[in-house]
Amino acid sequence: MPDKKQIGNTQLERIFHPKRLAVIGVSAGSLGFGSRTIQTLLHFGYQGEIYPVNPKGGTIAGLKIFKTLEEIPGDLDLAIITVPAPLVPEALEACRKKGVIGAEILSAGFKELGTPEGIALEDEVKRIVQKGIRVVGPNCFGIYCPAGGITILPGLDFSHESGPVAFLAQSGGMAGEFVNNGKSLGLKFSKVVSFGNGVDLRETELLHYLGEDPETKVICMYMEGVEDGRAFFKVLKEVTAKKPVIIYKGGLSQSGSRAVVSHTASLGGSRQIWESMMRQANVVQVNNSWEMAQASLAFVVLPERPFQRVAVVGGGGALGVAASDTAESFGFELPIFPTSTQERIMAILPKPGSSATNPVDAANPGVPPEILKEVLLKTGMEEKIDLQILIQLFFIYKSIVRQGGMTLDEATPYRNLGKAIEEVQGQTNKPVILILPNSRREAEDLDLEEVRRKACCLFFEKGVLTFENLTDAFRAIAQVSRYYTRREAGKR
Amino acid sequence: MPDKKQIGNTQLERIFHPKRLAVIGVSAGSLGFGSRTIQTLLHFGYQGEIYPVNPKGGTIAGLKIFKTLEEIPGDLDLAIITVPAPLVPEALEACRKKGVIGAEILSAGFKELGTPEGIALEDEVKRIVQKGIRVVGPNCFGIYCPAGGITILPGLDFSHESGPVAFLAQSGGMAGEFVNNGKSLGLKFSKVVSFGNGVDLRETELLHYLGEDPETKVICMYMEGVEDGRAFFKVLKEVTAKKPVIIYKGGLSQSGSRAVVSHTASLGGSRQIWESMMRQANVVQVNNSWEMAQASLAFVVLPERPFQRVAVVGGGGALGVAASDTAESFGFELPIFPTSTQERIMAILPKPGSSATNPVDAANPGVPPEILKEVLLKTGMEEKIDLQILIQLFFIYKSIVRQGGMTLDEATPYRNLGKAIEEVQGQTNKPVILILPNSRREAEDLDLEEVRRKACCLFFEKGVLTFENLTDAFRAIAQVSRYYTRREAGKR
Repeated sequence: MPDKKQIGNTQLERIFHPKRLAVIGVSAGSLGFGSRTIQTLLHFGYQGEIYPVNPKGGTIAGLKIFKTLEEIPGDLDLAIITVPAPLVPEALEACRKKGVIGAEILSAGFKELGTPEGIALEDEVKRIVQKGIRVVGPNCFGIYCPAGGITILPGLDFSHESGPVAFLAQSGGMAGEFVNNGKSLGLKFSKVVSFGNGVDLRETELLHYLGEDPETKVICMYMEGVEDGRAFFKVLKEVTAKKPVIIYKGGLSQSGSRAVVSHTASLGGSRQIWESMMRQANVVQVNNSWEMAQASLAFVVLPERPFQRVAVVGGGGALGVAASDTAESFGFELPIFPTSTQERIMAILPKPGSSATNPVDAANPGVPPEILKEVLLKTGMEEKIDLQILIQLFFIYKSIVRQGGMTLDEATPYRNLGKAIEEVQGQTNKPVILILPNSRREAEDLDLEEVRRKACCLFFEKGVLTFENLTDAFRAIAQVSRYYTRREAGKR
Repeated sequence: MPDKKQIGNTQLERIFHPKRLAVIGVSAGSLGFGSRTIQTLLHFGYQGEIYPVNPKGGTIAGLKIFKTLEEIPGDLDLAIITVPAPLVPEALEACRKKGVIGAEILSAGFKELGTPEGIALEDEVKRIVQKGIRVVGPNCFGIYCPAGGITILPGLDFSHESGPVAFLAQSGGMAGEFVNNGKSLGLKFSKVVSFGNGVDLRETELLHYLGEDPETKVICMYMEGVEDGRAFFKVLKEVTAKKPVIIYKGGLSQSGSRAVVSHTASLGGSRQIWESMMRQANVVQVNNSWEMAQASLAFVVLPERPFQRVAVVGGGGALGVAASDTAESFGFELPIFPTSTQERIMAILPKPGSSATNPVDAANPGVPPEILKEVLLKTGMEEKIDLQILIQLFFIYKSIVRQGGMTLDEATPYRNLGKAIEEVQGQTNKPVILILPNSRREAEDLDLEEVRRKACCLFFEKGVLTFENLTDAFRAIAQVSRYYTRREAGKR
C-alpha cells in the first residue's frame, strides 16, 4: 500500500469530486436517510452516476437498486453509508473489497453513545480503515463540494457555485448552520466536510489538504476535540503562514465538554491549552458560527493587510459616539482630521448639528449619497486613515414612502450609494465599510428587511462589506487586521 | 416661587400629559420642524388642543396659526419651540410670561457648536429657566408619552399603548432607535424623554420622577454626560433599590468623548469613575441600544428573582455544546440530572443521537412540541433547576413546505409550542426561554423571518421570552439575575 501522505491528495480529489457513487442503505419508497440522500443529490443536480444499494432490490427515483455492492459494474469513488450502526462494518468492508476510494458513514450509534457496543463498532470501523479505505464519519453529514456536485443532507439548496471558503466541522448541524449563515452574507464555498466522530479523515489531514487547495482562500473549522494535538499544531502553523484559519472551538466550558463527549465522543481539552495554541499559531478565534461567517466575509472582501486608523461618517451624534466607543474597544484609532480637512467637510454638510473632527456627523441620517461621496473622498484621502466606516439608517426612508409616490425600494438610495462607495474605494484605495443598523423589526416592517437584503447583495457584488451593527463590523475587521499584522511580523 | 422639588412632579405630570400645547415656529405649507411636529402629533392622534404660532399667521392642517403666543386664549401646558437658535430665547421668554408650564426646545445650534455664540445662547436660555419655566432641550426630540398622546418627531408610528418601560436619552436619535428596538420585541413605554443639552430637566430629576412613577417598572438611560455626579449617584441608589435602572453610557473612549462634546456638549467623564459608580449603585450596564432593549424585555417578562442553574434542551449536539459554553461564560451552571431523570427523558427521545445529562440533545431539530413538553416538564421539575432554555430551529420546517401541501406558517408548530411552554411554565413555576436561531437570511427566505416575527409576538403574549441567539439570551438573563441578587443582598 502506498504511503498515505503521498497519495492522500489524489484520493481526496476523487472523494470531493466523485464521478460514480453508491448509496448503501436505501429502501424503495421509504423516507430513510439513504433515500433522502439520493433525492438530495438529484435535486442538487449531481452529474455523476448514482448506484443505490439494498438487499431487497427494486428502484428509487428511477434508479435501479443493486442488491449488493459487488454487482455494481466498474469502479466507485465514493460510497455513502446510511445503514444502522451494527450493519456499518459489513458495508464498509464490502466497499474496501470493491476498491471504493472513500466512504461517508452518515449513521450514528458509535462511540458517542458511550456504550461498550458503540465503542466496539467504532473500533471495528477503524480496523477496516487500517486495511485501506478512506472514511468520513461516522455520525456525520459528509461532504458539500459544489465543484464535485455533491452536498450534505440538509444542503438541498446550497449554492452550486464554488467559492473561496472551506469549512471543517465535527458537527453536521454546525456545517448546515455555517453554510446558511455564510450564504446569507453572499459567501461561496470550496469544500465543506462534516466528519463527526472522525475515525479516519479529520482535522489535521483535511486542514493540510485545504492549505494546499488552490480553490480555498479562507479555512474555517468547528472543533470539539483533536486527535493528535502536536500534529495538528504543526500543520496549523504551516497553513496560517499561507492563509487565514478561523476556529470556533466548542466545549471549553465544564458542561460544554460534557456535551462534547455525548456529541462526537471527543475529549475537549482545557481552555488554557487551546487558547495558547490558537494564539501561537495565529489562528482567528471566534465564539460562534455567526462570528465565523462574518470574519470569513471580511477576509474574502478586504485587502490582505492590517488596518489601524479609522474614519467614521454617519448622520446622528449618538451614532458617532457609539462608533468611536466600539472602534476603540477593538483597538482601532480615530485620528482627528486636520483643520483644513474639517473645514472642507463642513462646507458641504447641513448645519447646525454637523461636525467633522472624526467621527463626522452629517447632522441627519438622510444626507444623499452624492454628498456622502464627497465627504468620504476627503476623509479617505487623509494619509492617517486606513479604512472608513459609513453608517446608514435605511429605515428612515420608510417615512418618505409614507408620504406617497414611491416604493421603499425606490426611496432607499442604495444603488447610488453602492456606486458612490465603489468610486470612493477606487479613488482612495481604502475600504469603506457600510453599517446598516435596523431597529425596526416588527411584523409590518418586513419590507425594510427585504430592501436591506437586496441592498447587501448589491453592495457585496461591488466589493463593499456591510454589517448590521458596529460590534459585528469592528470585531471582524479587527480579526482580519490582527491576522495580517501577526503574519507579517512572523515573516520578519 | 414654590420649591422646585415640591411641585416638580405636578409640573412634570402636566408636561407629560399636556391638554393644551403650542408649537412655536411653523410656516403654512412648509416642511420645517414645526410643521412636521404638528403633522406628527395629529397623525399620532393627540387629543388636546394644538396652537401653532408664527408671526405671519395663516393656517396649517386646518388649524389657525396665531401670530403671537399671547394671543392664544387660556393656559398652556407645553410649548414646542422649533425656531432657529438665535430666536429661541425670545420665544422661551414669551412662554414664561404667558405662564406655560414647560417648553421642549427642539432647535439645535447651542453649546454643542462649541462657538461663543452657541454658548451665549444656551446661557440666555438658562437664565430664563431660572426665572420659572421648565425646559426639555435644547437640541433634542422631546417627549414620547402614549398616555399623554404626545410623541417625538420620528415617532409617528410608535405605539399608542402605555407600558412599563421608561427611557431617558440625551440623544434624540437614540430615543428613536431604542423605542423601535423595544417595539420590535413587543415592549411598551410609559415615558421617553430626549433632553439633548439638558439646560433644565435632565438625568437626575427625571430619574427621580420615574423612580416614583407607578406606570414605570424598568428605567433605561442613554447618557453622554452628567451635570451633578454626586446628586445623580444618590438618586440612582434610591431608585435601583426599587426598580431596575439600565444605563448605556456613550463616550467612554477617547474619540467617543470627543464626539460627545460636539453632540450634546457634555463632559463624558472617565471610564473608571462611571463603571465604579454604576457597579456601586447596582445599575445594569449595557453596551448598546439593542442590549438595552433585550435587558428591558427580560426584566419585563421574567419573575423578579435571581437565576443560577439552567436546564438546556435542544435538537442537535453542537447546539447543546454552544449553549453550555455560553451559559457558563455568563456565570450560569448546568447541573447534571439524576440518573433516574435521565432515563425517563431518554425513554421518550428518538435514538440514536440523543442524550440527557444536561444539556438534553433530542437528536434532531424536528422533535414535536408534545415530546418537548414532556421533556421540559421532567427537567423543569428538578429541584436543582431555576430556569430552562429551549433551542428551536424553525428554519428546518421550510423543507417540509417544499415537500408540498402546507404553508410555512402551518408547517412551523409555533402555536403548539407556545401552548406547550405556557403549560410547562405554569406547572413548574420556572421560566422557559426560547432561542430561535435563524441562519437562513437570504432574500428568498423572508418567509422564515415573517413566521419568526409572528411566532415571537405570540410567545410574548403568552409570557414566553424569546431571543435570536444564545449570547443575547444569557447576557440578558444574567443582567436580570445579577440585579436581583445584588438588590436582595443590599436589603439584608
